[in-house]
Amino acid sequence: MTGSGGWRTPVVGMVGAGQLARMTHQAAIGLGLSLRVLAERPADSAALVSADVVVGDYRDLDDLLGFAARCDVVTFDHEHVPPEHLRVLVDKGVVVRPGPDAKLCAQDKVAMRTRLGELGFPVPRWRRIEGAADVTDFAATTGWPVVLKAVSGGYDGRGVWFAVDRDDAERLMATAGSTPLYVEEYVAVRRELAAVVARRPSGEVAAWPVVETVQRNGICVEVLAPAPGLTAGGAEEARLLAVTIAAALDVVGVLAVELFETEAGLLVNELAMRPHNCAHWTIEGARTSQFEQHLRAVLDWPLGETASTAPAVAMANVLGGADPDICNRLPWVLAADPGVRVHLYGKDVRPGRKVGHVTALGDDPAEARGRAGRAAAALRGPA
Amino acid sequence: MTGSGGWRTPVVGMVGAGQLARMTHQAAIGLGLSLRVLAERPADSAALVSADVVVGDYRDLDDLLGFAARCDVVTFDHEHVPPEHLRVLVDKGVVVRPGPDAKLCAQDKVAMRTRLGELGFPVPRWRRIEGAADVTDFAATTGWPVVLKAVSGGYDGRGVWFAVDRDDAERLMATAGSTPLYVEEYVAVRRELAAVVARRPSGEVAAWPVVETVQRNGICVEVLAPAPGLTAGGAEEARLLAVTIAAALDVVGVLAVELFETEAGLLVNELAMRPHNCAHWTIEGARTSQFEQHLRAVLDWPLGETASTAPAVAMANVLGGADPDICNRLPWVLAADPGVRVHLYGKDVRPGRKVGHVTALGDDPAEARGRAGRAAAALRGPA
Repeated sequence: MTGSGGWRTPVVGMVGAGQLARMTHQAAIGLGLSLRVLAERPADSAALVSADVVVGDYRDLDDLLGFAARCDVVTFDHEHVPPEHLRVLVDKGVVVRPGPDAKLCAQDKVAMRTRLGELGFPVPRWRRIEGAADVTDFAATTGWPVVLKAVSGGYDGRGVWFAVDRDDAERLMATAGSTPLYVEEYVAVRRELAAVVARRPSGEVAAWPVVETVQRNGICVEVLAPAPGLTAGGAEEARLLAVTIAAALDVVGVLAVELFETEAGLLVNELAMRPHNCAHWTIEGARTSQFEQHLRAVLDWPLGETASTAPAVAMANVLGGADPDICNRLPWVLAADPGVRVHLYGKDVRPGRKVGHVTALGDDPAEARGRAGRAAAALRGPA
Repeated sequence: MTGSGGWRTPVVGMVGAGQLARMTHQAAIGLGLSLRVLAERPADSAALVSADVVVGDYRDLDDLLGFAARCDVVTFDHEHVPPEHLRVLVDKGVVVRPGPDAKLCAQDKVAMRTRLGELGFPVPRWRRIEGAADVTDFAATTGWPVVLKAVSGGYDGRGVWFAVDRDDAERLMATAGSTPLYVEEYVAVRRELAAVVARRPSGEVAAWPVVETVQRNGICVEVLAPAPGLTAGGAEEARLLAVTIAAALDVVGVLAVELFETEAGLLVNELAMRPHNCAHWTIEGARTSQFEQHLRAVLDWPLGETASTAPAVAMANVLGGADPDICNRLPWVLAADPGVRVHLYGKDVRPGRKVGHVTALGDDPAEARGRAGRAAAALRGPA
């Protein structure tokens, strides 16, 4: 966009137009920008609210090139762009942030596990598998159960299976068909944590408080910030892991490091290189939201403060229930608790689908959690 | 917008697409909505970021009717829609909030002064004028100087003139030409305050903390929340004035009551019935922003909490300077103070024009004010 004085506002293009792009656009507005999104469909969450929508296929190189030609920097709301396309974009001079080498570690879990292992970061034991025999060999050292994971494409619990014995593993592998899998030890997890940071090309990194993420059926349902009961040393260790990984992988933008807290310490579970569900709480709960920070990072602008705005912040996801009319229930929720912050994504409501989230701020973690959870449940309505 | 389940998200239409509509759209996104705006030009501040833009003339009844036909409720980002058009909209069944009778008191200062006087609210002494003789008669009771004001259309110091004697008054009236004027006593103002509330059709009202507004050349340049040194009793009185006016005039949406603090108490200066510059601080500084609250109010949804999120909040407007390239200076400002919140409106930069604002939160009013002011000045650049 060119101003009257001949100066230009940079154009950030985001591939994908889900709720992450939607909330990034919301943040872009404050910075005087307007997010350009590559949407699959005009009814995508971000496409409903952005002035600058290109409809196209992120798997199609021509669509990507056409989109990128109109952007100063290209970033992502998901992990699904083929890595080889990202390399072509870079070869053609497109500014892609995070870059393909970094992004690969969020796209390909074998690449991620390999790279993190080489760099000495703590990860669960794992190995590539070709057949059920490999699983059995692996289980001989770790014991059953083991975890089979899709190398790419999994999220929200998809692409993760638990195998209790060889028969189970064979059955699961048959179900998975041609999906490449790897096997991982089953970790006795005390709880799951997440350390989220943002990093600029210049190297500046900013880390938010470490959070606890609560999963149900493999889907994140609640996030508690800061992670209740986490010691200062534990938080420091988790933040340092995330900061170090961001630097080692040359990540640009937001990096979410999902962690297992175990008796033996922290293990890195997953990486995401984009705004992430585990940091939605930062919209009201931190001085700078992950969405604004992601924009600042990919533009190589100075990062903002990450301190919390309240002693306790809780976020609960709103999942779709049997009755899709969330809008009808919204006023009841607002009436019941005038202090909760509701975020709806404009998505069609389907059972179990993430269609919004609620954030509550307070002095007491349990109270904030209760408020966010009750509001989210009321928005969901009857199961 | 109709969801797949057949349920509908309500469509709020805002007449006008300036920065107030822009920030209202930002708030709408969170509520699962998308603001529909009636813009004068595609490059208007809100039109740059909204997915749902109608270009048309708010002075043209057909344009208004065409716009309103696609909205569940129509509201405003300015005061300039002809009152007679608003009445036609209502007659044709359009839900207009605030309604024409209320809105008139924000459009026509003689109507406002008359109505507030009838209702017993404290206002400066004033009278209608036809010629300079009326001004002299008026000044015989109040003394010189007096203030000549345009009955409608004035804002940001426009439409306000000070006359020191009859010659001065005659000269000013000649300059004003056919603009209808009235005369008002010159009030020895200690400082200016603003009490901002929101009201639903159902009668629910919510009031934010009372703020001090700092004007320079008739333009609001800073807002301090809460108003430093204001006693609890003084704040209560100001809030009560605003709440009572909102109820008495049947205001729906945000009402900003600009007040003179004098030795003798509070006087009502101006009313605005829309989100207002004096409450931009609420975006980060209050649990619910004026923009979200305005949407909730015009949709007759329950209102949100209005408590501050920090002991001291300061907002400084960014006015255009000699060099329009604000985007080039933005990273410097973000680097100098990672804690300030910058809002840019995407508007062409012209000297003296409001093109953004900065908010700083803290424990100390003077420190917050200094931070916001320095960041705003740095964004403005060389005068």
